[in-house]
Amino acid sequence: MMKTVRNDFPILNTQINGRPLTYLDGAATSQKPWPVLDAVQQYYLTENANVHRGVYTLSEVATKSYEGAREKVQNFLHAPSSRNIIFTRSTTESLNWLAQAYGPTVVGQGDEILLTYLEHHSNIVPWQVLAQRVGATLKYVKLTADGQIDLADFAQQLSPKTKIVSFAHVSNVLGTEAPVKEMARLAHQVGATVVVDGAQAVAHLPVDVLDLDVDFYAFSGHKMLAPTGIGVLYGKEVLLEQMPPAQYGGEMIEEVGLQSSTYQELPWRFEAGTPNIAGAVGLGAAIDYLEHLGMAAIAAKESDLMKTAIAELSTIPGLEIYGPVDPADRHGVLSFNISGVHPHDVATILDQAGVEVRAGHHCAQPLMRYLGQAATVRASFSFYNNQEDIVRLVQALKTVKEYFPND
Amino acid sequence: MMKTVRNDFPILNTQINGRPLTYLDGAATSQKPWPVLDAVQQYYLTENANVHRGVYTLSEVATKSYEGAREKVQNFLHAPSSRNIIFTRSTTESLNWLAQAYGPTVVGQGDEILLTYLEHHSNIVPWQVLAQRVGATLKYVKLTADGQIDLADFAQQLSPKTKIVSFAHVSNVLGTEAPVKEMARLAHQVGATVVVDGAQAVAHLPVDVLDLDVDFYAFSGHKMLAPTGIGVLYGKEVLLEQMPPAQYGGEMIEEVGLQSSTYQELPWRFEAGTPNIAGAVGLGAAIDYLEHLGMAAIAAKESDLMKTAIAELSTIPGLEIYGPVDPADRHGVLSFNISGVHPHDVATILDQAGVEVRAGHHCAQPLMRYLGQAATVRASFSFYNNQEDIVRLVQALKTVKEYFPND
Repeated sequence: MMKTVRNDFPILNTQINGRPLTYLDGAATSQKPWPVLDAVQQYYLTENANVHRGVYTLSEVATKSYEGAREKVQNFLHAPSSRNIIFTRSTTESLNWLAQAYGPTVVGQGDEILLTYLEHHSNIVPWQVLAQRVGATLKYVKLTADGQIDLADFAQQLSPKTKIVSFAHVSNVLGTEAPVKEMARLAHQVGATVVVDGAQAVAHLPVDVLDLDVDFYAFSGHKMLAPTGIGVLYGKEVLLEQMPPAQYGGEMIEEVGLQSSTYQELPWRFEAGTPNIAGAVGLGAAIDYLEHLGMAAIAAKESDLMKTAIAELSTIPGLEIYGPVDPADRHGVLSFNISGVHPHDVATILDQAGVEVRAGHHCAQPLMRYLGQAATVRASFSFYNNQEDIVRLVQALKTVKEYFPND
Repeated sequence: MMKTVRNDFPILNTQINGRPLTYLDGAATSQKPWPVLDAVQQYYLTENANVHRGVYTLSEVATKSYEGAREKVQNFLHAPSSRNIIFTRSTTESLNWLAQAYGPTVVGQGDEILLTYLEHHSNIVPWQVLAQRVGATLKYVKLTADGQIDLADFAQQLSPKTKIVSFAHVSNVLGTEAPVKEMARLAHQVGATVVVDGAQAVAHLPVDVLDLDVDFYAFSGHKMLAPTGIGVLYGKEVLLEQMPPAQYGGEMIEEVGLQSSTYQELPWRFEAGTPNIAGAVGLGAAIDYLEHLGMAAIAAKESDLMKTAIAELSTIPGLEIYGPVDPADRHGVLSFNISGVHPHDVATILDQAGVEVRAGHHCAQPLMRYLGQAATVRASFSFYNNQEDIVRLVQALKTVKEYFPND
């Protein structure tokens, strides 16, 4: 099945700078397969209407598609009910809504919010603003030498003062996977709420929110084959019930008076205004596509790519890989530097060969400082990449030193 | 040019309940023309990458398309700079960000926020929450007998206590146009900030934010031919500069420390996380399409449709139209009831004839109570509707009484 997958991604047959596109920035955003593009197109060609509001047929059809997508997300995450699934714009919005609306209901003066040094800015800055607003303190869990979360340090930093623990399921810089289930167990022992940033996980490994027993789980559609502009916030029902709405307007109200209003039940209470209907439909199609392939098969394919990439990159003189070098310990993401060459220069040279990788701080400045690096090059893989992409990456990397012969 | 426009909207050639689709709910959401669908598809087929972050070619191409869309919005609104244009999910999100982030910087205990009885819930509930939060009072401007904003009452209610005035450019229930320029002038005399909800205006008439001299202008893409999930907040630069970000994360930061961070310049400071890139590209294509037709030509075509509709509906026994009956005084929206028949029943009967109209409170419960109605039927027109749509509406309306012979 995996062999023909590439034909579903038309952009992969285009050229960049006269060379075949070698797209290795899936951690920033994924490419989209025909079935997702077709689902969105079909929605607009045959079903488009506003949802929930209309008593007419077209609106009922659109509503069924939109709510059907919610059920697909529910099943994908193994959530108990579609009431647990809130559509947002993105992981970033999901985390902001938590920090803004849920945060103040549990975090107060003198309390602590526990993050890790692996976090993306979207899982840091919203909590900084909350901490400043209520007078709480932000703390960060240390990493082991190879870039995994230090569980002993995590356990030690937990205390009854810890009200929220928030961390990435998979690091967007090192690809390391957090021991989510164990961290959730420990955090719940002190009564903390467990928030997981799943942005880098959902496209790469199976996620079961009940088994992991997390309280909230946030992710973006665009990193898992879906269109831009659609994201998800999963939450346990009892917690969503105590969380005030983050936005107000049409759709989310029950009754609007002149001075005050009452609100709808879950999940619509959190979806003010016309939602990204076509985006949700596209996300549903993306989930269908991923589940048809199977998340286990996807993980296995990506693990093979990672194995080759680590083996090949390790032969390049002066190239240092950050994080674990055992392919089993990382998902989809490979960060590295070549000594004496600025990462931006590496990316620019690769770009001339059609190899598209990211260079920079990857929205993780605290981690960069922790690693002692200003920036890294990051190649990230998806199941639609193949061994030839790795060959092209390695070939292009081997030319880097030719541009900098004196280093 | 207008004669061939219909061919651009493929959904208009489909059938509903075995009858040709007569889509008269453009005020809820617009249908999409091929050039918009193609632009989004082309983006994913040839340009898709994350924006701003990448130093590689594909990311630069995507960034150029995204920022190019921002410039199209700037020109469409006659805004002085692209720094004035913030991409949001929707009108609702734009208004929420204003109420949440800008609101507390100007509204305090004992101050007043002035709305009108015409407002959509999205321009009421966010201000209710702000008023409750800071201890301010919400006031409502009365309407004239035919549903226009009562300018005398507006002028009388303004005072130095009035910190924010927020109102719809065009009513989503009555189609009446607010005298925006005069209201802005009067509001500025008392030092109030002027917020305009342009959701029902942007697809129907030319908008010039400089000429109107409003401080903020909010609208949604999906009501003006663009995809769902993209909206705009225009703001004067001096006001955006004093407004804190509404969301935090990647893209919007300058430097992230462990305990605090600094933020980017305008407009990116307000766009945390991966934006709806394809949605923005689609909005740009929608603007191209509208400008190619010309907003004046669009307004003229819709005025013709409104003239026919009012003339024809006025001949139906027991049908009462709400708001002005002079077609010049309303844009795109016609609300009415048939005596003795519940509006939902009217909509259901029309639906059987393929005529899709909305029935309900139209997210404007305060206005419904003001009009003394629980609900109305609403038929709304766009330039892609034609005289035949009106004929079908009228034919179907004439059958309503056959279902209720005893009323």
